[in-house]
Amino acid sequence: MEQPIFSSISVGESIPPFTIGPIDRTQLALFAGASGDHNPIHLDDDKARQGGLPGTIVHGMLNMAFLGRLLTQWVPQQQIRRFSSRFVGMAFPGDEITCLGTVASCDASAGENCVTLELVAQNQSGEVLLKGLATICLT
Amino acid sequence: MEQPIFSSISVGESIPPFTIGPIDRTQLALFAGASGDHNPIHLDDDKARQGGLPGTIVHGMLNMAFLGRLLTQWVPQQQIRRFSSRFVGMAFPGDEITCLGTVASCDASAGENCVTLELVAQNQSGEVLLKGLATICLT
Repeated sequence: MEQPIFSSISVGESIPPFTIGPIDRTQLALFAGASGDHNPIHLDDDKARQGGLPGTIVHGMLNMAFLGRLLTQWVPQQQIRRFSSRFVGMAFPGDEITCLGTVASCDASAGENCVTLELVAQNQSGEVLLKGLATICLT
Repeated sequence: MEQPIFSSISVGESIPPFTIGPIDRTQLALFAGASGDHNPIHLDDDKARQGGLPGTIVHGMLNMAFLGRLLTQWVPQQQIRRFSSRFVGMAFPGDEITCLGTVASCDASAGENCVTLELVAQNQSGEVLLKGLATICLT
């Protein structure tokens, strides 16, 4: 992986996008096992509908993990200092999720070379699932 | 799950803690499959050491997912509006991770009953892995 260099980053620049999908139920089952979150709204359509949902939904934290992969395909995990997300929409099995990041600011004032990224995760129809921010320290 | 009620929440109050662990390598393999993040630093001690780490480390996003479970065991996922985390330390296989949340503020001014929680994830030695904030809307 070629490392981004702070001095060559400009505000407004996009980082390489990341797309994953279609999300399948196996991924939801794997995430349930990894996280221990076996809530049936992520695993069982009938129970999700009983809970007022249109069907099984993707774990919000799995969507956020995909947004995290946008970051870790750009820099090693250890360079990610902060990561936040606003949960805007739901994803469903079969969705394809695209994660996008844009450089919002560059700041070298605190002794480290940090960039703030504005992040979006959206489905195949362009509907926004998550809006996020991340702070990444670069060399 | 008994739902927390906005009018009965006080600043400074703790929400029920959540502990998971010891984290095993199967969870890391499951998370790799769920997220598609097969970076060997999470799966292979030798390759992690070659990368300058003491050994295999837990995916940061899996730690954050555990902190997310602290939230989803308190309220349904749909009530989580924002969630942010600062990555402070690394977790390793065998660690037990405890997630804690404290009510930092209550705000009903924007037409919704929202509480902000301060969050911490720490290992069995009390070393902090993540510090977070979450905004939850209650009825």
